[in-house]
Amino acid sequence: MKEKELIQIITKTLDSKYIGDDCAYLKDLGITISQDSLVEDVHFKLSYMTPFQLGYKAVMVNISDICASGAEPKYLTISLSLPKDTQNSFVKDFYEGAKFAANGVEIVGGDITGGDKVFISITAIGSSKNRKISSRKNAQAGQKIIVSGPHGSSAAGLKLLLDNQHTPQTLINAHLMPKAQVEFSKKIATAATSDYAMMDSSDGLMDALSQIAQASNVKMSIDFSKIPFDKEIKIFNNWQDLVFYGGEDYQIIATIEEGLLKKLHGYTIIGEVEKAEKDFGVEVNYENHKEFYTPKQIDEKLYNHF
Amino acid sequence: MKEKELIQIITKTLDSKYIGDDCAYLKDLGITISQDSLVEDVHFKLSYMTPFQLGYKAVMVNISDICASGAEPKYLTISLSLPKDTQNSFVKDFYEGAKFAANGVEIVGGDITGGDKVFISITAIGSSKNRKISSRKNAQAGQKIIVSGPHGSSAAGLKLLLDNQHTPQTLINAHLMPKAQVEFSKKIATAATSDYAMMDSSDGLMDALSQIAQASNVKMSIDFSKIPFDKEIKIFNNWQDLVFYGGEDYQIIATIEEGLLKKLHGYTIIGEVEKAEKDFGVEVNYENHKEFYTPKQIDEKLYNHF
Repeated sequence: MKEKELIQIITKTLDSKYIGDDCAYLKDLGITISQDSLVEDVHFKLSYMTPFQLGYKAVMVNISDICASGAEPKYLTISLSLPKDTQNSFVKDFYEGAKFAANGVEIVGGDITGGDKVFISITAIGSSKNRKISSRKNAQAGQKIIVSGPHGSSAAGLKLLLDNQHTPQTLINAHLMPKAQVEFSKKIATAATSDYAMMDSSDGLMDALSQIAQASNVKMSIDFSKIPFDKEIKIFNNWQDLVFYGGEDYQIIATIEEGLLKKLHGYTIIGEVEKAEKDFGVEVNYENHKEFYTPKQIDEKLYNHF
Repeated sequence: MKEKELIQIITKTLDSKYIGDDCAYLKDLGITISQDSLVEDVHFKLSYMTPFQLGYKAVMVNISDICASGAEPKYLTISLSLPKDTQNSFVKDFYEGAKFAANGVEIVGGDITGGDKVFISITAIGSSKNRKISSRKNAQAGQKIIVSGPHGSSAAGLKLLLDNQHTPQTLINAHLMPKAQVEFSKKIATAATSDYAMMDSSDGLMDALSQIAQASNVKMSIDFSKIPFDKEIKIFNNWQDLVFYGGEDYQIIATIEEGLLKKLHGYTIIGEVEKAEKDFGVEVNYENHKEFYTPKQIDEKLYNHF
């Protein structure tokens, strides 16, 4: 909760039109830009991640931000802060992982400094050339809500890792080596002819739906039965919470005009954008009942669960 | 020394043509980009800096990097990691300082996370439109070496602050509230018609000269008597070391064709680029003798002094 309070302070102090989406769209330069940090013992623990995996994931989450904007990921800069006793091999492996994740996106700079813990801050730059750039403000009643893949797997993998378990491998991999939806988002951004909302599910499915609902002042109405998830997460009693509130799956969530769907593939329609009658928020339709959540309720759930 | 060793590992792992200058020049996008981090108790102490000053300086050093590339500073993203018990007023004051330093350069994004210590990582973006971009590889024999202002003041100010002294104010200010050379670098980058080398003196005058000598394979020959410095630093016995090796003055150091000088003002010529006969490096001419320093010797001096 405190993070959102601080973001409000920052937004108020800066009075900038750019703060809001994960990426800022700098129209005059034809780019989108995003910067994200990973802090040891806050966002990850070295007990369950190799330096290669850490470099991989740090880059991938930033590429995912660019994908969510609709831009083409082009360049990265990496700042790395390391404790004094860090082995040289850590740096080599970290950058090997970073390069593997970058997969053609060029790492062009950054710096390396000392510190008490491992701190990584990465900036990603995307090109808006021949792309229509998304905004979470762009959801409109009548649009279909689509996702690129399963939710809950990464959070399930993290639970296993924290419990010192290393199977099922699909769940572990979902957490340690997620994939940004480069092709999926490209299809949308190059085919779109009208405004659309798009986010990645870095902070979970419900958070993304809630953010879009709030920014666009709409109701995001989804069917629970349609949300794709990996059946292996059912080993957890609270698997429904993992699907809703588990983060770091880095799937794409978008609100799309129905006419555009025929140009896409690999998506799952999970619901539809509706007008917000009274409150904006997320409506979940179950087999026999439905429930409505305000962004505040979703924030509280997120805060209590994770 | 270790930092340079690690940069070699990174350069080798990435095999990227971009690593080398403080900014990467992304020609296809018409931008230069730089990312720099400041870590509490490594780069600064909160005992002698207010949050406003910290926000100010963190932004200013990144704007300075863009200026050194010759580009026009346009946008910034800020990642801030803060201990849990940080007051909200810290965040407000930090961003007030950041905005003051930005002075029209727009802060468009970033993130805020938890951590053990204050960690700041800022990315700056500059536009290369109507500018000739510099590179430290561009120094050529015959060019004049110019600087935009005095060296040593910031390091002298830091020494005073660490000694809990708060005067002379000019030295304290030089350390806490440095100014990026926005107009000076603009003049050079808009007037230049041929290649030139340019850096800021973030790591000290000798380091900048050494980096240019090494990248361009030249001898940087300077006259000690011509280097501008604030007379107040003479309160320190080792004031000559402060002038040479003290960092964070954020002055501009450039190698310029003589013909271009008439279009500039406010510069001081401190020497000339010469062919490297045997070794590249920095030659310092004193009244009655001269001394030659290889980059390795300069690194050692830097390491031993600071």
